Amino acid sequence: MELFSDVYFMNEALKQAQIAFEEGEIPVGAVIVCRNRIIAKAYNQTEKLTDVTAHAEILAITAASNALGSKYLPECKLYVTLEPCTMCAGACFWAQLGEIHYAANDPKRGYTRHQENLLHPKTKVVSGLLADESKKLLDSFFRKLRN
Amino acid sequence: MELFSDVYFMNEALKQAQIAFEEGEIPVGAVIVCRNRIIAKAYNQTEKLTDVTAHAEILAITAASNALGSKYLPECKLYVTLEPCTMCAGACFWAQLGEIHYAANDPKRGYTRHQENLLHPKTKVVSGLLADESKKLLDSFFRKLRN
Repeated sequence: MELFSDVYFMNEALKQAQIAFEEGEIPVGAVIVCRNRIIAKAYNQTEKLTDVTAHAEILAITAASNALGSKYLPECKLYVTLEPCTMCAGACFWAQLGEIHYAANDPKRGYTRHQENLLHPKTKVVSGLLADESKKLLDSFFRKLRN
Repeated sequence: MELFSDVYFMNEALKQAQIAFEEGEIPVGAVIVCRNRIIAKAYNQTEKLTDVTAHAEILAITAASNALGSKYLPECKLYVTLEPCTMCAGACFWAQLGEIHYAANDPKRGYTRHQENLLHPKTKVVSGLLADESKKLLDSFFRKLRN
């Protein structure tokens, strides 16, 4: 079996963010990986679904649980192009995700603003991978929105 | 138009919690009210849907946004039988809910454990209504689970 790298998976998340961008959504994408295989892909769809809960991470967790037939995802890794918000960190907590890799920081709405760790104590977190690429896409989206 | 009281709406949320109980789910129920009318009802379905994000509040917010055709719910009141968790408080924040009424406290997972206010600054919060009834249902569920 070919072993894929973290960069490969984050790039797949970025492709999801690109789809969001093209559909006029804030460009955030996510994939969930289990044993080196992508089991869920999602992008932010809050506009299309008229639903604030339709963040990429929430949709990806729902899809991954559906794929595995399990509420809990301790053997799974989430790759997401933006730091999860409070809501999504709460969802990651409940899912007991094994690892979270996020690209760009979100100083305004990211879960790390909070003093307490909102994630499950067993969840490993890695940040910064392809952060520039993610930030460029987000900046470009908001620049377009303002014009 | 007949004006319903907070007790009436919380009791409707309790009826939803009772359905959850009967279906073997942790008994939490919610309704969302807009201009004195219930526009969404939901109960916890994490087991049935194999999805940690299927809390009563999340399902109710999705349904209410669908009913109104709006992502934002500033004119809506959420009645929920248990204090929202971090994830659900995050969803309430994004939806900019006008009011949240919750019955029982959740000292272990409730959002008020956090030092920061996780809700939207404009969201009014009321707690304690029918708290005993909600707690009784929850206690009965966990007692049954242990036996």
